[in-house]
Amino acid sequence: MTHSKLLSLLMSVVIISLPSSHAIAESENEELSPGYQVWPIGWVRKHGGKTVIEVDEAYIPALLGLDQFDAIWVLYWFDRNDTPERRGILQVHPRGNPDNPLRGVFATRAPVRPNLIALSRCRILSIAGNRIEIDGIDAFPDTPVLDIKP
Amino acid sequence: MTHSKLLSLLMSVVIISLPSSHAIAESENEELSPGYQVWPIGWVRKHGGKTVIEVDEAYIPALLGLDQFDAIWVLYWFDRNDTPERRGILQVHPRGNPDNPLRGVFATRAPVRPNLIALSRCRILSIAGNRIEIDGIDAFPDTPVLDIKP
Repeated sequence: MTHSKLLSLLMSVVIISLPSSHAIAESENEELSPGYQVWPIGWVRKHGGKTVIEVDEAYIPALLGLDQFDAIWVLYWFDRNDTPERRGILQVHPRGNPDNPLRGVFATRAPVRPNLIALSRCRILSIAGNRIEIDGIDAFPDTPVLDIKP
Repeated sequence: MTHSKLLSLLMSVVIISLPSSHAIAESENEELSPGYQVWPIGWVRKHGGKTVIEVDEAYIPALLGLDQFDAIWVLYWFDRNDTPERRGILQVHPRGNPDNPLRGVFATRAPVRPNLIALSRCRILSIAGNRIEIDGIDAFPDTPVLDIKP
């Protein structure tokens, strides 16, 4: 998705937000929704037409054997939408088009959702050290990566 | 995976843990790895041979349109392994079998990994209110669910 498309999506979403404390659970209601902490294990890098998952060097041991696979699931974080307001959006017009009927975010791949986890299947082109070159990914450069799975 | 199999896996993993602060980033090194907060949007329930994703009632609007799909991706949290030690494990013997060569956790589906996010494709059998009956899922009862995607 291009930047302009994403902006379009964000501007056209219908905000049906959570009236409850869930959207701000991390600050006000730990008992109801204790929550869990995730952190980046790497980042999406895009340079010179190449797309690379650059894994934090501390996690290089976690890549052992990954070269046996042709493709990976990449789980990453929609960090640009990490506000209580956007995480409270529960329904959107898919692809930001108001002509598309309203859908719940769990019935779409919208980048606004309670937990901002994105999921893409990517082909592995090469692995060298902490760098996994992939065929592409629908993510902004420098997006935080949370997990890699075969 | 049965409980005993999981215990077997956990007892036989080779602990190659992170010497750095990443495994305890949430408490000591916010600057290096700021991290993000996720929280349950529902839970896996298993009763009477049925498996149900019970979505928190606040999120019912987010299910609008999900009935158009035959299957969903369910992202859930390996909450029983949520300790700094287990999140620091970077290599395991797949399926807990010491005869299997050591593999990086990013080259396996092991339930010990830096971010404890699990991923399963599940068939939808029915949807009623906040309950999505599915064909099954490799998760303990009452496991927290983080996201649902078509």
